[in-house]
Amino acid sequence: MSWYLEAGNDSDIVLSSRIRLARNLRGYLFPNCMNDEARKAVLEKVSEVLTNIPGNPLMRMDIAPLPQTDRRALIEKHLISEELAKGQEGQSAFISKDENISVMVNEEDHIRIQVMSPGFSLENTYKQAEDMAIYLEGMLPIAFSEKYGFLTAYPSNTGTGLRASVMVHLPVLTSIRGITALKDSLQKAGYTVRGAYGENSKSVGNIYQISNTITLGISEKKTLQNFGKMINEVIALERKLRQEFYGKNKEKLEDRVFRSLGELTYARLISSAEAMNRLSDLRLGVACGFLKDVNERQLMLLLNTIGDASVQKRCGEVLTPKDLAMRRADLIREVLKGKEEKKNEEEKGE
Amino acid sequence: MSWYLEAGNDSDIVLSSRIRLARNLRGYLFPNCMNDEARKAVLEKVSEVLTNIPGNPLMRMDIAPLPQTDRRALIEKHLISEELAKGQEGQSAFISKDENISVMVNEEDHIRIQVMSPGFSLENTYKQAEDMAIYLEGMLPIAFSEKYGFLTAYPSNTGTGLRASVMVHLPVLTSIRGITALKDSLQKAGYTVRGAYGENSKSVGNIYQISNTITLGISEKKTLQNFGKMINEVIALERKLRQEFYGKNKEKLEDRVFRSLGELTYARLISSAEAMNRLSDLRLGVACGFLKDVNERQLMLLLNTIGDASVQKRCGEVLTPKDLAMRRADLIREVLKGKEEKKNEEEKGE
Repeated sequence: MSWYLEAGNDSDIVLSSRIRLARNLRGYLFPNCMNDEARKAVLEKVSEVLTNIPGNPLMRMDIAPLPQTDRRALIEKHLISEELAKGQEGQSAFISKDENISVMVNEEDHIRIQVMSPGFSLENTYKQAEDMAIYLEGMLPIAFSEKYGFLTAYPSNTGTGLRASVMVHLPVLTSIRGITALKDSLQKAGYTVRGAYGENSKSVGNIYQISNTITLGISEKKTLQNFGKMINEVIALERKLRQEFYGKNKEKLEDRVFRSLGELTYARLISSAEAMNRLSDLRLGVACGFLKDVNERQLMLLLNTIGDASVQKRCGEVLTPKDLAMRRADLIREVLKGKEEKKNEEEKGE
Repeated sequence: MSWYLEAGNDSDIVLSSRIRLARNLRGYLFPNCMNDEARKAVLEKVSEVLTNIPGNPLMRMDIAPLPQTDRRALIEKHLISEELAKGQEGQSAFISKDENISVMVNEEDHIRIQVMSPGFSLENTYKQAEDMAIYLEGMLPIAFSEKYGFLTAYPSNTGTGLRASVMVHLPVLTSIRGITALKDSLQKAGYTVRGAYGENSKSVGNIYQISNTITLGISEKKTLQNFGKMINEVIALERKLRQEFYGKNKEKLEDRVFRSLGELTYARLISSAEAMNRLSDLRLGVACGFLKDVNERQLMLLLNTIGDASVQKRCGEVLTPKDLAMRRADLIREVLKGKEEKKNEEEKGE
């Protein structure tokens, strides 16, 4: 089963948690300064280790030979970054069976370990990433300085190399206060708020990615503690605002949410942006307790499968924009009718 | 059963046909010049006759004592005019059990007979109005001139006193060419195109009322022939345009129609204007053959019951605008689920 379909904590607001650890090999220049030969050497060294992890070998995926649609689909699943998707020779991703772990090699750093979990789960997610880092440290010479910590291509990651992030759904907070106020206040505290697909990406469906930015002079434990505390405050605020908003605008909110369900259930052509915004309404309706026809799991399945590339890849043929909009609408209808979920479970052998 | 729920000819385009005959009593001034005493005298004379028609007595409804909501509801059902709804002492409507016949007394003329039928049906509808007129002529002294024909308060009705009209649904013609071109060309030929509720009323849901304007120097038979021929041309044109439009815009049209079905099925608050426009989409989808979840009968039931006053009257209480929008949405959902139709049939003792 895909990791994002499992139940998570605080899933009314937190869609997923992610831990990223940046590591580099001693004795090699950083990827932005490397020649092709060195890049390939690093890749092969790391590959040897990652594809032979006892009990959980990762699958190697070289980016350069991949068709564009496949690269976009990996981005939509948050398995690789926009940067890696450019696909130079010697760049690869190593992905676990459940797609919850992905190690990018020769992106900005030699090694970027990433672990994703459903809902709000920092400690457990960090534990998995740490295990992977410790395993790699045992097998490869990792660049580490007693003074600074782990060395990275950019100083912004030096120290712990740790970036914790959560994907949060903030429909009411952003509709009432706008996202700018939150962004500004979190920025002052050392956090960034971005769209769902990383740097400069726009938010769709009121989903934001919040991450820490400070990695130097702070321990991993303290980083996670501070970050967790801040996210809990965001969760509490959004919950409070939802309750107030629903209390004051019951009929209007129910009308909007049910209409979005109607549009998603009946549309024959739909863009990914419209679908994401309507799914945002549905998530809010489910969280407020009045929308019973749909469950969080269906919504997570849709959020993770209606992107352009995912739909394209699923259909296995090159689609015109109109066909893409049509297939997306078909898929949404199937999932909302409960058909697709079963099929997906069967395919995944659940 | 309400007359508009019966199947009619050309009902893909023509919702209903209506014949109106204007008559006046000899020996009385026209209503706009009458004093109260004379108005009451005319009313009582005509009432005596209309409430005693053998086999089909009409029900008298005095307007002056009626609450505003009831007057608006009668207008929404096309049983009385805006003019009569002002409700002076001595003004009444006489209505048949099926609500297909309504005789207004002391509106612009002493007597205005009106018969409505579902679909396109001029001859049969005229026959019923004529029968009523002949019956009245047998019982009351009707103002008639050998030279001009029937005399009326305004010269625009003198002669036959006949106004034939049909309610037509022209979504594609109006979306492609606009209604102005049709209005202009029909006006030159002696016809008017108006909104569904008569003079100066706006069109909602792409529904228009087309009527003849000439009553002098032309026989009833010729009036109906010419009018019928012209309406057949309008029907043929709209059908041709629908076919072309659907051929060229299959997915877009299906998307629009199904989304309207989604909105109507799921909305919790809806205005009458939005509902009418979405029902227009549904009618078009049914007529084009791809919308199977809904039938014409349900659409006719909705068209005739979702007006503000009809919803208000049905609920039997004074509704705030928000409650009105809510109750309308509830009613629409019930009808689309097929519940309301059965209930309506049971109530009408079908």
